[in-house]
Amino acid sequence: MKEISIPFKQIGTIQTPYYSNAPYQPVDTAEDNFSIAINREYVDGLSDLWKFNYAYVLFYAHKAQGRAEMVVAPPWAKGKKVGLFSSRSPSRPNPIGLSVVRIKDVKENIIFISGIDVFNGTPLLDIKPYIKDLDNKSDANYGWLDELDNKEHLTLHIKGIPHEH
Amino acid sequence: MKEISIPFKQIGTIQTPYYSNAPYQPVDTAEDNFSIAINREYVDGLSDLWKFNYAYVLFYAHKAQGRAEMVVAPPWAKGKKVGLFSSRSPSRPNPIGLSVVRIKDVKENIIFISGIDVFNGTPLLDIKPYIKDLDNKSDANYGWLDELDNKEHLTLHIKGIPHEH
Repeated sequence: MKEISIPFKQIGTIQTPYYSNAPYQPVDTAEDNFSIAINREYVDGLSDLWKFNYAYVLFYAHKAQGRAEMVVAPPWAKGKKVGLFSSRSPSRPNPIGLSVVRIKDVKENIIFISGIDVFNGTPLLDIKPYIKDLDNKSDANYGWLDELDNKEHLTLHIKGIPHEH
Repeated sequence: MKEISIPFKQIGTIQTPYYSNAPYQPVDTAEDNFSIAINREYVDGLSDLWKFNYAYVLFYAHKAQGRAEMVVAPPWAKGKKVGLFSSRSPSRPNPIGLSVVRIKDVKENIIFISGIDVFNGTPLLDIKPYIKDLDNKSDANYGWLDELDNKEHLTLHIKGIPHEH
């Protein structure tokens, strides 16, 4: 198959307190220092977004370097190796990141959100509403995570619950 | 802000029975004719994916034409106008589509999935596992959809439940 190149563009910037290290998944923190600044030309597109409890944030994982490996060993998985598309690793053929965030407030071109697992300055690609019946899958499961010995500990990381190691 | 161009590539193709019309949201159909063919070089990345009940499919909405409008009138919303980023319209600054699909089976480079609301031949950008604690938000809501008179009817469309008009 001929490889086609699809040009995407930065439409805003994600602001977080993570400058050199970021958690592997969103941390639900009481801190009010997570926000998204959308470029001014798109500000009218934010209308009504505050009415949703959650939204998807699609971003360019710009710090993911090098060639994507098809088999990865996710953090905390104690060396277990899984297929890349069974993981949320940022090093992918297309480094598009996806996080579900809580919408706290929207003021002009700024969206105030719950914690998100990205570096400060991460380029924003898209925002979509998380709609209850469409996106909330009550029979979702843990996939290969169920096979880990330390699943309960891992779940704390997934949920972003602070804990001692 | 200087506009940067981020090149993405097609990593596979989504196969559906929709050639000229597609539903606005996934339809949960018993038909077995929805699948994703991933390019051969990425087949090792599909390992363990079958262990998940659901996955996110990110695709290039290649039929979305023209300039994205910041205020849109979604189908079935009876003329209500909302901000683009409060909608799932495919015409966006970055036409990246996102659907949650059920994983039925994975055989070699083919993923058999539940219904997805895209045209046959849609370029695949990424697949990510939908992980229970991370992506299942039990307190998600309907946002502006709650304001519609015909919300119950609309919910049938959102859920993809066949019904008479």
